[in-house]
Amino acid sequence: MHTSKSAHLKIMAGNSFGQIFRITTFGESHGEAIGVIIDGCPAQLEVDLDYIQGELDKRKPGQSKITTQRKESDTVKILSGVFEGKTTGTPIAMIIPNEDQRSKDYSHNVDVFRPSHADYTYQTKYGIRDHRGGGRSSARETAARVAAGALAKLLLKTQGIEIVAHVSSVGKINSPNVDFSNPAQFIEEREKNIVRCADPATAEEMIEYIDGIRKEGDTVGGKISCYIKNCPVGLGEPVFDKLHADLGKAMLSINAVHGFEYGSGFAGSEMRGSEHNDIFVKNHLGHIETRSNFSGGVQGGISNGMPIEFKVAFKPVATIMHNQQTIDSEGNAAEISGKGRHDPCVVPRAVPIVEAMAALVLADHWLRNRNSILS
Amino acid sequence: MHTSKSAHLKIMAGNSFGQIFRITTFGESHGEAIGVIIDGCPAQLEVDLDYIQGELDKRKPGQSKITTQRKESDTVKILSGVFEGKTTGTPIAMIIPNEDQRSKDYSHNVDVFRPSHADYTYQTKYGIRDHRGGGRSSARETAARVAAGALAKLLLKTQGIEIVAHVSSVGKINSPNVDFSNPAQFIEEREKNIVRCADPATAEEMIEYIDGIRKEGDTVGGKISCYIKNCPVGLGEPVFDKLHADLGKAMLSINAVHGFEYGSGFAGSEMRGSEHNDIFVKNHLGHIETRSNFSGGVQGGISNGMPIEFKVAFKPVATIMHNQQTIDSEGNAAEISGKGRHDPCVVPRAVPIVEAMAALVLADHWLRNRNSILS
Amino acid sequence: MHTSKSAHLKIMAGNSFGQIFRITTFGESHGEAIGVIIDGCPAQLEVDLDYIQGELDKRKPGQSKITTQRKESDTVKILSGVFEGKTTGTPIAMIIPNEDQRSKDYSHNVDVFRPSHADYTYQTKYGIRDHRGGGRSSARETAARVAAGALAKLLLKTQGIEIVAHVSSVGKINSPNVDFSNPAQFIEEREKNIVRCADPATAEEMIEYIDGIRKEGDTVGGKISCYIKNCPVGLGEPVFDKLHADLGKAMLSINAVHGFEYGSGFAGSEMRGSEHNDIFVKNHLGHIETRSNFSGGVQGGISNGMPIEFKVAFKPVATIMHNQQTIDSEGNAAEISGKGRHDPCVVPRAVPIVEAMAALVLADHWLRNRNSILS
Amino acid sequence: MHTSKSAHLKIMAGNSFGQIFRITTFGESHGEAIGVIIDGCPAQLEVDLDYIQGELDKRKPGQSKITTQRKESDTVKILSGVFEGKTTGTPIAMIIPNEDQRSKDYSHNVDVFRPSHADYTYQTKYGIRDHRGGGRSSARETAARVAAGALAKLLLKTQGIEIVAHVSSVGKINSPNVDFSNPAQFIEEREKNIVRCADPATAEEMIEYIDGIRKEGDTVGGKISCYIKNCPVGLGEPVFDKLHADLGKAMLSINAVHGFEYGSGFAGSEMRGSEHNDIFVKNHLGHIETRSNFSGGVQGGISNGMPIEFKVAFKPVATIMHNQQTIDSEGNAAEISGKGRHDPCVVPRAVPIVEAMAALVLADHWLRNRNSILS
Repeated sequence: MHTSKSAHLKIMAGNSFGQIFRITTFGESHGEAIGVIIDGCPAQLEVDLDYIQGELDKRKPGQSKITTQRKESDTVKILSGVFEGKTTGTPIAMIIPNEDQRSKDYSHNVDVFRPSHADYTYQTKYGIRDHRGGGRSSARETAARVAAGALAKLLLKTQGIEIVAHVSSVGKINSPNVDFSNPAQFIEEREKNIVRCADPATAEEMIEYIDGIRKEGDTVGGKISCYIKNCPVGLGEPVFDKLHADLGKAMLSINAVHGFEYGSGFAGSEMRGSEHNDIFVKNHLGHIETRSNFSGGVQGGISNGMPIEFKVAFKPVATIMHNQQTIDSEGNAAEISGKGRHDPCVVPRAVPIVEAMAALVLADHWLRNRNSILS
Repeated sequence: MHTSKSAHLKIMAGNSFGQIFRITTFGESHGEAIGVIIDGCPAQLEVDLDYIQGELDKRKPGQSKITTQRKESDTVKILSGVFEGKTTGTPIAMIIPNEDQRSKDYSHNVDVFRPSHADYTYQTKYGIRDHRGGGRSSARETAARVAAGALAKLLLKTQGIEIVAHVSSVGKINSPNVDFSNPAQFIEEREKNIVRCADPATAEEMIEYIDGIRKEGDTVGGKISCYIKNCPVGLGEPVFDKLHADLGKAMLSINAVHGFEYGSGFAGSEMRGSEHNDIFVKNHLGHIETRSNFSGGVQGGISNGMPIEFKVAFKPVATIMHNQQTIDSEGNAAEISGKGRHDPCVVPRAVPIVEAMAALVLADHWLRNRNSILS
Repeated sequence: MHTSKSAHLKIMAGNSFGQIFRITTFGESHGEAIGVIIDGCPAQLEVDLDYIQGELDKRKPGQSKITTQRKESDTVKILSGVFEGKTTGTPIAMIIPNEDQRSKDYSHNVDVFRPSHADYTYQTKYGIRDHRGGGRSSARETAARVAAGALAKLLLKTQGIEIVAHVSSVGKINSPNVDFSNPAQFIEEREKNIVRCADPATAEEMIEYIDGIRKEGDTVGGKISCYIKNCPVGLGEPVFDKLHADLGKAMLSINAVHGFEYGSGFAGSEMRGSEHNDIFVKNHLGHIETRSNFSGGVQGGISNGMPIEFKVAFKPVATIMHNQQTIDSEGNAAEISGKGRHDPCVVPRAVPIVEAMAALVLADHWLRNRNSILS
Repeated sequence: MHTSKSAHLKIMAGNSFGQIFRITTFGESHGEAIGVIIDGCPAQLEVDLDYIQGELDKRKPGQSKITTQRKESDTVKILSGVFEGKTTGTPIAMIIPNEDQRSKDYSHNVDVFRPSHADYTYQTKYGIRDHRGGGRSSARETAARVAAGALAKLLLKTQGIEIVAHVSSVGKINSPNVDFSNPAQFIEEREKNIVRCADPATAEEMIEYIDGIRKEGDTVGGKISCYIKNCPVGLGEPVFDKLHADLGKAMLSINAVHGFEYGSGFAGSEMRGSEHNDIFVKNHLGHIETRSNFSGGVQGGISNGMPIEFKVAFKPVATIMHNQQTIDSEGNAAEISGKGRHDPCVVPRAVPIVEAMAALVLADHWLRNRNSILS
C-alpha cells in the first residue's frame, strides 16, 4: 500500500460569508477582475442594476480631492442567475474588471514589507504573494462586497428594512447625533458632502481636517455609525450566531477596522443596571417598544424591533507619503518611501462598505429566521 | 415595533461542494458565461493551464459523430488566485464564456415541460426559469466542474494519486475488466476511440451501437467505471463524511446519474461474509495489502491503501428526436418534438466529469486528513 | 516572533449531517453513552417520546433469533430543547446509555486487525483506537441516528410526508414489488415477521435462509427498498445538493452499505430514452403526475411530487464464526477466530436506520426549500 | 401530486462554533444538563480532566461575596472520544448536570418580560420559551464553552500558545497596564483576588465598589482585557475569517458583551498613520518584531507573531433588586421585582469565558492554518 509524499503547501479558505444568503468573493487588486458569487438569493427578486452600480460609485476611487486619485470606473456586470430582470434562484455571479493596473507603481514593494500592511503576514503564511497593490489584501476587494450588499439591500427593501450609515468621527472630530428616522433624507443630506457625514457643519470641519492631513502626506482614522430601521423582531440565531455577533464579525472583516460596539457599547460598561435597562412600554399605536435603546435593538442576540445601532472604528491608512524604516524579505533593515495613490482617510469611501456588510448580515438572518416572521 | 410583510420568494443554495478544497459553480447554458471559484486550494501549486484546457476538451460538445453537434470552444480563463504560474492561496476564479447561444432553438420549450427534464421541477420550485437549453439544469454546468477538477488532479499528482475512468457499458454492451495499473497507458488506450472505453474491441461495438441509436433519433444509457491509484491510507471522515459516501454524493450530483456502487457493490449484497472478507497480507515489499478488494479500497469509510474502485450508472438522455406527449405550463396536454442538438449517449463525454468529481472529493479529503498522512 | 513547534496530531470532523435540520452524533460502542444533538429543529413541534423509543426498539439488538444476542435496552433520554412536550427551537440533546459493555469479549482484538472491519484504517489514520467492539466504527452509533430520525419523521408527519422501507432481498432471495400506497398497512405487514419484509411468503423464505447461514457461523448481505409518499414538488438544491445525491450520501454513510440507486437505477443504464422518459399527464383529480416513474420521484435533483423510490445494498457482516487469516499490529501474520455476539444478516435491523436517514434528508430539504412550497 | 400544508414552525440553528475544531453546545438553565460536543479535536491529545474542572470552577456560581449565591458544583463528565486518557479523533461529548434547579424562583417570570433580558425576543421568535432562569439565554450555557475551551487550551499548550485575561475595568475604575510576559505569574496574581484583576491595588478598589453596588441591589458593567502569547505568524483566513474578526464574533457571542476592540481599537481611530504604523525591526535574537503593537498582533487579518491584545466590554447585569416597570405577555403594563440569585457584576466570572472563547478561535485557526506553520 501507498505512503504519501510530504509537500510544502499552504491552505486558505475564508472567502465566503453568510449561511443562506452566502457570498464568495475573489480577485486581486491588479489582476484581471474582482467579483463575487451570491448563492442562496431567493428567486423572483427584481434586480435594479442601476442601484447596484450607484452603490459601487460611492465606494470607487477618484471621487473627490480627499480620496485616492487611482481611476477605476468599477463597472459591474452580471454573468448569471438573473433572467428577464429577475433572480432565478441560481447563483448570481458579478464581476468588476480591473482597469487602472499601474503595476509598476508597486515594483518598489516586491522585496520590502510595508509597515502595518499585510505584506509580511501574507508572505509568511503562503510563501508567495501578489505584491501589486496589496494583491488580495487590498481594500479593492471590498468592491465585490458592495455589489453583493446592494443586492441584499434590494431584498431587504421588499421587507421595508432600511440600512443607513455615515461618518460620525474623523480623528477627534465627532458629529453630534443625527436623526435617521427618515432614511432617504438622511442619505440625501450625507451625500451633499464628500466626507459622507450627515451633519453639514461637522462635515465641513472634517473635510478641511482631512485635506490638511493629505497635504502633510499623512493619514487619519475615523468612525462610522450605522442604523437599521424597520428590522422585525426575531432576527439572530443564539447562542453563537447572535445578530450583533455576526454584525461584529462582518464589520471587523473590513480592512482597517479595529473596533465594533452596538447599543451602549464601551460606554455601557461604565453604567449601572438601573440606568441601562430598557423599559418595555406600549406606544400610541399599541406596539411594544422600549423607552431607551441601550440594547441597540438586539436582546439576547435577537432583534427586538427597535432600531439597530452600532459603531465601527477604522485605524488610519497605513500608506503615508513619508519615508519609513522597515525590513526587507531577507530580514535586513530597509527604508520605504510612500509612493502610489492612496486615501488620506478611508471612512468616506467605507460608508457603502459598512452598509453593504450590514445588509449581507441582515439578509442572511432574515432568511434564516424567515419562518418565524412569516407565520 | 415593526411587523414584517410576507413575500413570495424562493431559496436555493446548493452550488458549493467540498469542505476545505471548496468549489462554487455558477452559470446557465445560454447566459454570458459559466464558471467556478475554488477557495481553499493550497498556495504554491503549479498551474498547468494546458492540462486544464485539455480536460475541458474531452468534455466539450462537437467532438465526434456520437456527440451533440453544438459548437463551443470551452476556452477557460483564470481571473484570480494565480501569480507567476502558481497558486497564491487566494480564491481561484475560472470562467468559460458561452459562445454558441442559439437560444431560438429552445423557444419551443418556453411553455411546455419536456419529459424527464428539469423544466417542471425548476418552474414549480422557483416560479421562474431560464428555459434556454435547460438553463442551470443543463449539463453545460459540468464544464465548470471539469475545470476545477483538473486543478484538483494537479494537486493530487503532487502526491502521486492518479484517477482514471472509462466507459464500461453502453446499454447492454459491457467491457471486460481492464488493467488500470498503468494509468497513463490506460488513458492512452481509452483516448484512441471516441466512446472512451479502454477495451478496443468493446469500444468498436459500442460506437456502432450508439451510432445506430442516433440514427433512430433515440438515446441510450451506460456506465462508467473509475479507479483511484496510490491513494494513501487514512482518507475519509466518519461517521457521515465517509470517503465512499462523499464519492457517492459527488457522482449522484452529475446530471443523469441514477446509481453508484463501490467495491463489491450491489453484487456484494448477494455474497456471504466468508467469501466477501478481504484478507490482510504482507506483500513482497513488506507493505500491508488485502488479497481481494471487495471493500473497493475503503473500510469503515476510510481509504485502506488499496485501489479505490467504483461504478456510476447513467440513464439515457431525455431529449429524443421523437414526438412525445406532455403537458404545458397550464397543465394542458401538449406535444413536444425533439429539436436542438443533443447527445445520443452521454457517457463518452461524462468520463472527464466523473474523474473531475472524484478528484474534487480526493483533494478535499486529502487536505482534511493531511495531518495524519504527513506525520 | 514565535515559531511553532511541530506536532504529530490527527484530525477528524465528519460527525454532523444536514444543513438546517443538523445532527451531530457522538459515542463509542463500549463507552458511557452514545447520543446526538439536533440543532435547527423548528419550535413548537410536539415530541412523542414513545414513538422515538419505538423506532429505537426496531433497531436494538436481541430482538429475535436472527439478530445478535447482545442485550441493550437502548432507552433514550432527552436532556434539552423540549419544554412541556414541545420543541423550543433550541438544541435537542438525546442520549442512550451503554449497558451491556462486555469489553473483555473484545480483548482478542487489541492487537489484530479483523478482516473487512475498520480496525486497520482507524489505527492508521488516528494512531489510536478504542478497540472495544469497534469503538466509533461500530454500528451501535446508528442508534443515535434512529433517535434523531424519529424526530425528523414527526416533523415530516405534520406535512403528511411518509417514509417506509422494507427488506427487499437477502442474498439472492428477492421480494416481488409490494404496494406501499397505504404506508400504515405496509408497516403492519412488515412488522409481522422478524426479517422485516412486507411480502409474507418471501419473508418466510428469507428467515429460513438466514437461520441456516447463522448455524454455519456465516453471514449474508441484502437490500432494502425505501419509498417516500406525499413528498411535495420542489425539494432538492441543485447543482450539488440534489435530493437524490443527499439521499445517496445518507445511505452510503450507513455501516456496510456498498451501493445506492434511485428510480430506474442501474437497470436504467441499459434502457433507451424512448422507453425511459416519464410522460407527464393530468390525473382524474387534475393533478400533474407522470405515467411511469423511472425518475424515482426526482427530476433535475428536485422532487417532482411522485413517490421517491430508492434501493440500498448492504454487504455481508464481516464478523463470522470461522477462523480467518489476518495480520497483527506489527504486520505479522496472525489468525482470528470469530467471537462476540453479532448479526448473521444486518438488513432486518437496518430498516429503521434507512428510514431515519431518509427522514433526516427530507426534513433538512423541506426546511431548505420551505419558502417555495409555502407560497 | 401532493401540495404541502402550511405550518407555523420556527427555525434555529446557531449553536455551533468553529470550522475544524467545532463545538456544538446544548442545554437550558434549569433542564437536566448542559453540555457540548467537540468534533475535530486531533487524536492523541492528553486530556487533563483536573485542568478542565479547574477552569469550570473559575466560572461557577457561589465563589465569593461578589457573585450570585446560586450553588452548582458544575462537575463535568466526558462521555466519549477519550480512551485511556487521550483523544481518539472521534467526537468528545462533555456534560454538566444541573443541580440547583429552584425553578419556582422564576415562576414570577412566566408572564412578564424582564427588561433588557431575552424573554421578549425569545417568546416572539419561537412562540414558546423555557422561562425558568432564562432557559437557553441564561449565562449558564457558557459553562459548556468553558469546558470546550479548556480542551482547546490544552491543545494550544502543546504549541506553547498561552491565553490570559483579567478584569481591566469595573464601572469607571480602570486597571493600569499589567505585564503579561509571564502568563503563569499573571494568573497567579489575578487569582489572589475575587474580582480577577491582575493589579492588586485596583482589585481592592473594584471589590469594594462592587460590594457597594450589590448592597444597593444594583449592578454594574466592566471590561476584560485578553492577551495571547506565542501565537505563531500565519493564523487567520482572509478575507472574511480574519483572526480578529473571528475573535470579535466569539466575544460578542458571550452574554452581556456590547463591544470589542483589538490593538489600538477605538482610540486608534483618532490617530494619524505616522504615529500608528508599527515599524518592523529585527530583535537581538534575529527575530522579526514590531517596535509598537497598535496592530494588536494581527495584520491583514493574519497573526504577525506579536502578542495578540484585545478588550471586551460588558454591560451591567439586567437583573436588579429594584422594582421595575415592564409589560406582560398580553402587552399590558406590569411591574417586576428582582428576585432570584444574580451577580452584581459579571466580569469576574466572565474571565474564564473570554479565555475559553479565545482558545476556541485560536485552536480552530491553528488547525486551519496548520500546514503553513509546519512546513
